Amino acid sequence: MEAIVESARRKGSVLVVGLDPDLSRFPTELLRSPRESGEESVLPGVVREFCLGILEATAPFAAAVKLQSACFELLGAEGVGVYSDVIREAERAGLPTIADVKRGDIDASASAYAGAHLSRFGARCVTVNPYMGADAVKPFLDEARRLERGGGTFTLVATSNPSSVAFQEATAPPMYEVAARLVADLGQKSGDYTDSGAVVGVTRPAVGARVRELLPEAVFLAPGFGAQGGGAAAVRPLLDRRGGGVIVNSSRAILYAHEGDPGADYREAAASAAKRSRDELREIGAGF
Amino acid sequence: MEAIVESARRKGSVLVVGLDPDLSRFPTELLRSPRESGEESVLPGVVREFCLGILEATAPFAAAVKLQSACFELLGAEGVGVYSDVIREAERAGLPTIADVKRGDIDASASAYAGAHLSRFGARCVTVNPYMGADAVKPFLDEARRLERGGGTFTLVATSNPSSVAFQEATAPPMYEVAARLVADLGQKSGDYTDSGAVVGVTRPAVGARVRELLPEAVFLAPGFGAQGGGAAAVRPLLDRRGGGVIVNSSRAILYAHEGDPGADYREAAASAAKRSRDELREIGAGF
Repeated sequence: MEAIVESARRKGSVLVVGLDPDLSRFPTELLRSPRESGEESVLPGVVREFCLGILEATAPFAAAVKLQSACFELLGAEGVGVYSDVIREAERAGLPTIADVKRGDIDASASAYAGAHLSRFGARCVTVNPYMGADAVKPFLDEARRLERGGGTFTLVATSNPSSVAFQEATAPPMYEVAARLVADLGQKSGDYTDSGAVVGVTRPAVGARVRELLPEAVFLAPGFGAQGGGAAAVRPLLDRRGGGVIVNSSRAILYAHEGDPGADYREAAASAAKRSRDELREIGAGF
Repeated sequence: MEAIVESARRKGSVLVVGLDPDLSRFPTELLRSPRESGEESVLPGVVREFCLGILEATAPFAAAVKLQSACFELLGAEGVGVYSDVIREAERAGLPTIADVKRGDIDASASAYAGAHLSRFGARCVTVNPYMGADAVKPFLDEARRLERGGGTFTLVATSNPSSVAFQEATAPPMYEVAARLVADLGQKSGDYTDSGAVVGVTRPAVGARVRELLPEAVFLAPGFGAQGGGAAAVRPLLDRRGGGVIVNSSRAILYAHEGDPGADYREAAASAAKRSRDELREIGAGF
């Protein structure tokens, strides 16, 4: 967690670039050759090229990069190899990585996931699902602490998708409060924040403000900005008293910015979109 | 789901053999060569050999096989390749597979996970985490229905680990009830059961009985039997009115049965343990 806070300070940016590679939206120049050859085995290489292109173009404007594991798993074992390569390249370039895996298992299985994503693949932070309780989160924090790379966890607390309301607000107290208390209980202070962060969407401002009350010292990873419809102003209720504590993810609005301008190079379009998002977030005063 | 019910009927067994390969507990004869050569790249091959040995030995006594994704991911991209191979071999041998991935994401990400595990890797069923609500479960059911292979989902409802109580029973109504209603809402009848199943541990009998009331037509995947301490009798509260509706997972007690008898072949030890578990479950009347 500390590594991301430091990176955000150095870059003057709270933006997280989300890598959710979707072949159907890739620029045509990247896809031409595998389409022609009809060889599916070429696709992992295309995804690698696309991700590394986005990384290089957007790195100046981003505090961190988040990899959506699902998109890589869809390409099979080779896709997981690309996922591993992209994490390594991002870390080498000084961009801390968040493995967006949302794993939620226990005991030896949770430890194996932590070992896989934080140690073997080398991500700095990881997203975790709290449904199985503390047993599902603690092994990831243990692994992050053991590695001493300034890493940590982002536990799902209040997510931004429509159906999360019917689930996470169906009880008293609501589940997001139970999850927030779990995040608080497990955290250890490291710098100005704890290593136990939370995923809190920008689409439910009252909920976000309540979670901030419960977690004054946690870093929030906020999805829902950009393509999911939340503007920069929607981030405000999540900020801590100093205007910090939030990193904001944008995936599709950056990755596929070239769709709005068919002649543009996808990397240039992504860089412009990332710069614009960084600036919008600066304007509302978000920063560490 | 239907494929598993049919298999359970054909085999007269509700046992699910859980493949949670843990190198530190492998029989020494399997590990000798990689230890000698010191080459880590040999390990995925050893895991493949172990899993296929267990599969062949225990298939006569099992309704299905469950692969713990974490154990394979820990070996990196090559480990995911082994995971894929083992699923294919089990299905080829007529054993329906459950990909124990506990994924919980939404929209394109959930669809990508469903595409990866049900379609590309070819598992019949998948375990799913409900924390993000219906959005997190439906894409898996959609994919299973599209494939028409008698597959389905097992959504985490009431898990067997100690800390799940503090989380899943912290609210009113308890989360496991909210999750059970979600499972009920999304299910479609297919044969005698719905394609939307639930993970319900054997370690909380009153909770298990309550979940059965809410889900009279769902198949339960019950962990916690064997190494986690639940005996066959603990399965009873989960059964439906006909004594069916439950498949019971046992992982470590079968995989590492050779530890209790150092001279034994690990496959023979696993076969004996699987047969014993099948028989214990028959004795309490569990069957489809």
